[in-house]
Amino acid sequence: MNYSSTFIPTLREVPADAVIASHRLMFRAGMIRKLANGLFAYLPLGLRSFRKVEQIAREEMDAIGALEIKPTVVLPGEIWKESGRWDAMGEGMLRARNRLDNDFVISPTAEEAFTAIVRDELSSYRQLPLVLYQINTKYRDEIRPRYGVMRGREFVMKDAYSYNAGDESLDESYQAMGRAYRKIFKRCGLSVIPVKADSGAMGGSGSEEFMVESEIGDNTLILCRGTGSTNCDYAANVEKAGCAPDSAAQPSLEAAKAAAADTPPYEKIDTPNVTTIDELCAFLSATPQRFIKTLIYRAVNVELDLSAAPGCKGLERKKPADGAKGGVEMYGEAFFAVAIRGDLDVNEAKLAALVKAGEVSLAADADVVRLTGAPVGFAGPVGLAGLPLIVDHTVTGMNDAVTGALAKDLHYRHVAYGRDFSGWMTGDLRTVRSGDRCSLCGGELYEKKGNELGHIFKLGYKYTRSMNVSYLDENGKATIPTMGSYGIGIDRALASVIEEHHDEAGIVWPASVAPYHVIIVPIKYEGDVKAASDRLAAELEKAGLEVLLDDRNERPGVKFNDADLIGIPWRVVVGGKGLSQPKAQVEIKHRSEKENRLVELETAAVELAQKVRDEIAALNS
Amino acid sequence: MNYSSTFIPTLREVPADAVIASHRLMFRAGMIRKLANGLFAYLPLGLRSFRKVEQIAREEMDAIGALEIKPTVVLPGEIWKESGRWDAMGEGMLRARNRLDNDFVISPTAEEAFTAIVRDELSSYRQLPLVLYQINTKYRDEIRPRYGVMRGREFVMKDAYSYNAGDESLDESYQAMGRAYRKIFKRCGLSVIPVKADSGAMGGSGSEEFMVESEIGDNTLILCRGTGSTNCDYAANVEKAGCAPDSAAQPSLEAAKAAAADTPPYEKIDTPNVTTIDELCAFLSATPQRFIKTLIYRAVNVELDLSAAPGCKGLERKKPADGAKGGVEMYGEAFFAVAIRGDLDVNEAKLAALVKAGEVSLAADADVVRLTGAPVGFAGPVGLAGLPLIVDHTVTGMNDAVTGALAKDLHYRHVAYGRDFSGWMTGDLRTVRSGDRCSLCGGELYEKKGNELGHIFKLGYKYTRSMNVSYLDENGKATIPTMGSYGIGIDRALASVIEEHHDEAGIVWPASVAPYHVIIVPIKYEGDVKAASDRLAAELEKAGLEVLLDDRNERPGVKFNDADLIGIPWRVVVGGKGLSQPKAQVEIKHRSEKENRLVELETAAVELAQKVRDEIAALNS
Repeated sequence: MNYSSTFIPTLREVPADAVIASHRLMFRAGMIRKLANGLFAYLPLGLRSFRKVEQIAREEMDAIGALEIKPTVVLPGEIWKESGRWDAMGEGMLRARNRLDNDFVISPTAEEAFTAIVRDELSSYRQLPLVLYQINTKYRDEIRPRYGVMRGREFVMKDAYSYNAGDESLDESYQAMGRAYRKIFKRCGLSVIPVKADSGAMGGSGSEEFMVESEIGDNTLILCRGTGSTNCDYAANVEKAGCAPDSAAQPSLEAAKAAAADTPPYEKIDTPNVTTIDELCAFLSATPQRFIKTLIYRAVNVELDLSAAPGCKGLERKKPADGAKGGVEMYGEAFFAVAIRGDLDVNEAKLAALVKAGEVSLAADADVVRLTGAPVGFAGPVGLAGLPLIVDHTVTGMNDAVTGALAKDLHYRHVAYGRDFSGWMTGDLRTVRSGDRCSLCGGELYEKKGNELGHIFKLGYKYTRSMNVSYLDENGKATIPTMGSYGIGIDRALASVIEEHHDEAGIVWPASVAPYHVIIVPIKYEGDVKAASDRLAAELEKAGLEVLLDDRNERPGVKFNDADLIGIPWRVVVGGKGLSQPKAQVEIKHRSEKENRLVELETAAVELAQKVRDEIAALNS
Repeated sequence: MNYSSTFIPTLREVPADAVIASHRLMFRAGMIRKLANGLFAYLPLGLRSFRKVEQIAREEMDAIGALEIKPTVVLPGEIWKESGRWDAMGEGMLRARNRLDNDFVISPTAEEAFTAIVRDELSSYRQLPLVLYQINTKYRDEIRPRYGVMRGREFVMKDAYSYNAGDESLDESYQAMGRAYRKIFKRCGLSVIPVKADSGAMGGSGSEEFMVESEIGDNTLILCRGTGSTNCDYAANVEKAGCAPDSAAQPSLEAAKAAAADTPPYEKIDTPNVTTIDELCAFLSATPQRFIKTLIYRAVNVELDLSAAPGCKGLERKKPADGAKGGVEMYGEAFFAVAIRGDLDVNEAKLAALVKAGEVSLAADADVVRLTGAPVGFAGPVGLAGLPLIVDHTVTGMNDAVTGALAKDLHYRHVAYGRDFSGWMTGDLRTVRSGDRCSLCGGELYEKKGNELGHIFKLGYKYTRSMNVSYLDENGKATIPTMGSYGIGIDRALASVIEEHHDEAGIVWPASVAPYHVIIVPIKYEGDVKAASDRLAAELEKAGLEVLLDDRNERPGVKFNDADLIGIPWRVVVGGKGLSQPKAQVEIKHRSEKENRLVELETAAVELAQKVRDEIAALNS
């Protein structure tokens, strides 16, 4: 392709709202233009790389036997009402109503569409597992779209859905998908951090997010430095990260009691107007590690059996009217107290997983007063009877602590777990922080910001149950299939490649997703230089390479700057002294290198083709 | 691909609403499924053929230097307000409003989006011509979607837009696009009828529709049988079709007057309660060819200069407030009388083109009375002074006609054009019918129903002017580019291939768009038969063919029926006696043939590969 025949409007200026490298560079390199807030058009150069990322995703899906289909982008509202997400998805989902008053959804994801298709076709266990995918337009109405295509409103997603007969089959699909995802990212030249959800926490289901490090990431990751002698690949979203308990094993209730043998009996202390841990520390001149904090949470849509839990007698479990959670019986609302060491924070996602709740949040003041019989700020585990108490693992080792005394301006000291109180449950509920210890290797944990590029997730029966999907098993019995959901954002993956591969001058494309493999820069596109450039371009194209020939009537400096900006892996300069040697020579340079190298024109195409093939092979390996 | 590893849910039943072959067969062959009225999902088999049509369109666009880009499907409402189409597009355009009260449009077409992109990047004449295209999702809210993907709500369109410096350049882009469209349809195996708009009628602009014959077509086409000795390719949409006048040349006013020499002076006749041509024919015992019908039309947004036209003195030309027609000055409303032979109908599209109006329709009764001074049914050309009269070519040869007399229950007879009245304009305004004569060759015209697959259209300045696009020409002067618009519906093209290529048993794919080239049907997929089938599949794939191997545990009859239904061009049956010959043989059969042919297993792959290549080469030639 001749540069003057395509449309690459490069720019020196950067739009004011472009604060990250990929946004700046995609704009400056003429890859994208903004149509409106969060809506970007890909121009020819950008689209070439975009299609390569798509194609890599497609090939790896096909390789694991996933089958590509194409549902519509505009989806009927009815199926979203069936699944319950018409209400649950909120305002981030763009809806439209036509003149006949039909409701439509601009697809933000496609569990419903795929499940509606499968529902009508599935009859026998012999059709399972069935893994379908699409690479198609999605729309999510971000309130504050920014960072270019990294967080746009419209984007393209590769989304796959597996339908499986049972957990074992689902796990096979899930594992195959995880391997495919690793390959996709590797082939794109992306260093991803696979982040697993804590096993068990989601009721036996699995989830893995593929993150890239990013200063503007939405997610906080907890990673392990490993120990001096071993590496450790522990990585978790802070929302779900676990860590090693401070002591090696959780003491039994009896052991905890025994450990408190030397602690004086607990006693009341006056703490006038002291309601926060900070105030308490100051008042008692002690560190927060000495205190047990007791927090009251409100949980909604709780699946856990609370029939024997304190204060839960009146509660009734029922199937939600709106079909949420696939019609499983649950408590609409329940309250829990959590006791945790004073310097730590409760991780609400962990708490929600532990009690199998749809959502948890701090209870309103009025509820705290009603359930503890004390003003806010004086809750404590000793004598607490109005609701179930969950004791964090950090508290099970505390045998001389300060706690609220369930009365205004009063605390207890010398409180010991096991002797003075126990919990209805114990669990790991702390929010992990830098400096905590890895539960796998004991190494030090640290934090990073990350962006999610992909997510694989065992959905279970949520959609297949609410949308009435079934098949006949080996015994002719109607059975509901289980389901997995697997997504990669194509735009975000492309932008992330640029985040990872650029320098001050521009993009540095990996060969696998570069818009062209080679850019030929004739010093002046005329006479012998033109002839040599044209010939080289033809040879490179014959060898299967994609070539951009900069035939513009511009100074070499301008062409070099554009070549660097748009990031073509190999640059060949034709002209000058090299061409007049007995054996004509051209200068070749990889985008990541500083120095040119002279090679014979005669052999340049063969050498470059080999180098490009080698790089792609290495990425694919 | 093994049949059991993909997902081809073939069916014997036909959905009740599937009335055309392509809808029935795409459904039965498991190519598509319905998500909602007018919304179809492509399943794996359908998507394979769909992508091939897309790819053919892409290759031919690239071949003429058009550049692919990807705007969003969800477009900002603002640019539609700029062009004036936010109001003009009506309820067929699906709109959505998000939580921030931003207006969005689900792209029904993309003149605005492309023009918005080009506007920001265009500076110099050196960038022109610029031809951009996309292959992307469109949505049009058909009130009655039907015929499967032939008239769905969501579909994929290849839409291209050219930006040109002047008419000559636009014509070059337009002609290149026309050639590319012919190639695209030929490569798909489609017989299209290119239908040109009458030149001149659109103010010098050009338009060509590519139609396929279809019993359920939206369009009526006028085609020429040619004369006995010559073929004629005249083809026009009835809305714009012309035909030969009944006499070879239009007489001058003087000649018409002279021709009336023998006609008695016109005189009043009483025609009580006779207001229609039929009643008049009965009353006077004459054929409608004897009468001159005079009809009053209301036209809106008229560009034609009416300053010297009868009855138009008070009218004022102005720029429309809504930006319609790109801000050209025009009359908001004007009325015209049309005189035409009694047996003919006025073609409103031709009338609109002649007077350069946005739209024309029959005037309301009150306007007729006001403008003619007579009740409805008694308008006539003699003495008509309240509005401009346009005389159809058929009337310029009439010199002894009956007409309304501009008074209740009165007509004139012995009316002669040229002697008793003349028009403000003359023109060809008749709606052409079967039996009329071709204006090119004099052959007989006939009608066919057709569906539009593609349309190329010289848009002119409508969008570039209303959206303020300009570039600096060779002399540094700011100039507005002219524009062309070129579209092909991918879904409709695919369905049309099936309409043209099927029989009672199923689809008969052209090799270029077949989902697979070869289907291998082992009589029983085990032992030697399996080994031979696998080997053949591998050889065919190595030769670059796409192969479906029917490994299902089904009776051969079931497999044969499915093979016929899904229409794979070549079927190879492996097994039975053939395989046990000294040189193993297999049966090959083209989908369009009845008889098998035995070939050696050894050479089957080479032979089939050659045949497929030959067929595709013939389609591409």
